Amino acid sequence: MAKIQSSIYGVFFVFSVSLNLYCFINLYYVGGGVGGKGKQLSWTQKAAEEAEAVAAVSCSGHGRAYLDGFSVDGKPICECNTCFGGPDCSEFSPACVADADSGDPLLLEPFWMEHAASSALVVVGWHRMSYTFNDHSFISRNLENHIRKVHSIAKNAITDGRYILFGGGSTQLLSAAVYALSPENSSSPTRVVASIPYYPLYETQTDYFNSVNFEFEGDASSWMNTTSSDIDSSVNVIEFVTSPNNPDGLLKKPTLQGSTVKAIYDHAYYWPHFTPIPAPADGDLMIFTISKLTGHAGSRFGWAVVKDEGVYQRMMMYMSLSEMGVSRDTQLRALKLLKVVVQEGNGKEIFNFAYKTMRNRWEKLRQVISMSKRFSIEEIPPQFCIFSQKVRGPTPAYAWVKCERKEDKDCTAVLRAANIIGREGSRFAAGDRHVRLSLLKSQDDFDQLIHRLSNLISKEDGTSKTM
Amino acid sequence: MAKIQSSIYGVFFVFSVSLNLYCFINLYYVGGGVGGKGKQLSWTQKAAEEAEAVAAVSCSGHGRAYLDGFSVDGKPICECNTCFGGPDCSEFSPACVADADSGDPLLLEPFWMEHAASSALVVVGWHRMSYTFNDHSFISRNLENHIRKVHSIAKNAITDGRYILFGGGSTQLLSAAVYALSPENSSSPTRVVASIPYYPLYETQTDYFNSVNFEFEGDASSWMNTTSSDIDSSVNVIEFVTSPNNPDGLLKKPTLQGSTVKAIYDHAYYWPHFTPIPAPADGDLMIFTISKLTGHAGSRFGWAVVKDEGVYQRMMMYMSLSEMGVSRDTQLRALKLLKVVVQEGNGKEIFNFAYKTMRNRWEKLRQVISMSKRFSIEEIPPQFCIFSQKVRGPTPAYAWVKCERKEDKDCTAVLRAANIIGREGSRFAAGDRHVRLSLLKSQDDFDQLIHRLSNLISKEDGTSKTM
Repeated sequence: MAKIQSSIYGVFFVFSVSLNLYCFINLYYVGGGVGGKGKQLSWTQKAAEEAEAVAAVSCSGHGRAYLDGFSVDGKPICECNTCFGGPDCSEFSPACVADADSGDPLLLEPFWMEHAASSALVVVGWHRMSYTFNDHSFISRNLENHIRKVHSIAKNAITDGRYILFGGGSTQLLSAAVYALSPENSSSPTRVVASIPYYPLYETQTDYFNSVNFEFEGDASSWMNTTSSDIDSSVNVIEFVTSPNNPDGLLKKPTLQGSTVKAIYDHAYYWPHFTPIPAPADGDLMIFTISKLTGHAGSRFGWAVVKDEGVYQRMMMYMSLSEMGVSRDTQLRALKLLKVVVQEGNGKEIFNFAYKTMRNRWEKLRQVISMSKRFSIEEIPPQFCIFSQKVRGPTPAYAWVKCERKEDKDCTAVLRAANIIGREGSRFAAGDRHVRLSLLKSQDDFDQLIHRLSNLISKEDGTSKTM
Repeated sequence: MAKIQSSIYGVFFVFSVSLNLYCFINLYYVGGGVGGKGKQLSWTQKAAEEAEAVAAVSCSGHGRAYLDGFSVDGKPICECNTCFGGPDCSEFSPACVADADSGDPLLLEPFWMEHAASSALVVVGWHRMSYTFNDHSFISRNLENHIRKVHSIAKNAITDGRYILFGGGSTQLLSAAVYALSPENSSSPTRVVASIPYYPLYETQTDYFNSVNFEFEGDASSWMNTTSSDIDSSVNVIEFVTSPNNPDGLLKKPTLQGSTVKAIYDHAYYWPHFTPIPAPADGDLMIFTISKLTGHAGSRFGWAVVKDEGVYQRMMMYMSLSEMGVSRDTQLRALKLLKVVVQEGNGKEIFNFAYKTMRNRWEKLRQVISMSKRFSIEEIPPQFCIFSQKVRGPTPAYAWVKCERKEDKDCTAVLRAANIIGREGSRFAAGDRHVRLSLLKSQDDFDQLIHRLSNLISKEDGTSKTM
């Protein structure tokens, strides 16, 4: 009897121990453990499951599903990259055009997919409901500190002793800066200028706001003819200095000098991704954006680094009257992203990733263009980069392409006929012999650009057909 | 021997079964189970744990810790409500002033704490990196749909056949609307007016942007003297119609009529929390904000409901040139919050919660003021509310308090001497005999207001001291 009992115990015991082992593995190693690798979750569980389910939707590497996208039969739908379609984005459209128009920085998307765990963010329902932070400001000090850290890692700007404020992308800060630097009640409006070729928003924005205090005057160099004493005495001037420049990638200095001339340094592209960093930038008013640093154009987050307290206060006034500061949700997201930037690979990983991607794209583009006599690209000499501690060639965000044939007066149209969409030189106040091609978009977009460009160039007279 | 073996087996068996039971409960009921109540999580686990840890920090019910706040020794610090301090916000400062100045809508914070699970949001690192949504717009269609649903539940606005666009709070949309409604190249600037008392931002914002196309002209009723033919023929006028009005809570109609008069309806407070809804609003251009609906002032999210396509397009142009649309992070958060609004209690829970809170505060305030001969409150008659299907008294966001004594010319100073901070009537272009007291803030702030006010009123001559 005892023997039978012992045997029965034995069987159950083995079963029970096995079950314990299964439980133990599940609890402590698979993820949702109790004090092991992952703690038990309560109220965040549902949201976390939902996010993982959306991320798990397969879009064949040519699209992705989003939490705020639409669903069909409860399943989030794929939003496909250009040239791809079908429910899982697996269908390629061979007739599709290569769209190299916008500066959409999707080249960095794979970086964030590789860092899913460290970049995931949980926002609680009651996060920062107030108009202000605890110090009565619109600015997260923690985020401000992280911005200073990122600049010190990238060695691209001096922030010690400077004020930092936030805006809705660099877009909003450009406008805030123009307002802050234009004196009120001046006898004549402040003239806003930039050197050609320049980013079109400077003009459209300044014209749109149509303030009594300023007006856009176009080319900075046309003001060089004015004697310096004229500039000094009678007219206030603001010069946009875009460095590296959009569209041509050149590192720029101000064209104008004088006591009534102020510069707004647009440093959106002044990161090791796009240019060697010869020295940390040290302008009086410098504008940066997360869009070209981490690739989050959709987050609409930028910041200004400002020397003068009065200018900083006036820019803060703009932000306050425009929208009472940048959304706390956006600030929280930016903080999470910059935490990843600072932490991964001692802060170097994202810069190395982005630089390698850009270098790779430029190598491919140069190889294709080198086969052509019809098209040329602005060449920029290498420089010593204090971030990478070596001499580096630039890898700009855009290729500033020139049509060399006499008859190709409209370079954009030449490319358009070959199913390539670029941005017209005239948009940058340059001639239409130039066209800007974006190298920032998704790998699919870039591959299609190279494909279309190779095709076009292979048809040139006297060009090898073997490309 | 077999008996001893059997006994040992028995002890281990009981232990093993107990362990199984513990495991089972943990896996299937506590939360992070394998196919039970909660699924195993992978890359979201860390972020979810972090959010729960921050939320678990105890701040004695008089403060809270935030994910983007600072930490001491790795522990997130409490940010305390006004009048509370110490590491866990448990120390009350009896000398503390009652701050009823700002419209910070923290009265809704407890609602979101009660709905922690449904309102939690996980944002992935690669969420919406592009400048645009898949339809090339800056607007989440899913969010737009939810906004239409919320209006249809609250019965406070007609949205069928109307355009909806987003802005950085109502703040940004007010400015966008003024730009959109002011013709360019007009012989004289558009005159912007509002009826007294009015929200000061209309004036400061219009003055600040200082456009050639418009200027602030103050009181709407001063334009009533102009014959209607004058208004029609020579001058474009924009009237801000704030309904319910800030500061006095009255439902307002436009003061001016005429073919060159356009109204901007600021309906920030047109929710069942604050007023009976006599009919759905049907203005040509109506502005709403999440701040006064869900209490998320810090999210800087608002929307406009627009009849005319041309006006809508011009407002979109403003949003595009200001900051290329509202941050996708903010839109995602707003979507999550509105999903909760729509789902909980068939969409009625948040309105009932907010109304009850406001009603309760008004009862307490009226009780205190009723003891006073020195102070009075603007009384607004009850109306039939189509949301609650009954006659209701209004429960405005602010009390518009008047000092009745001849010598109390500066009502704000009278309250300030009793350690109560209100907003001066002069800020609203009204006399300083009026002061605005906010009823929207945290319960701690409200309790302190009632305490200070009771004290002050109990000292009035001829007033009962027993309050």
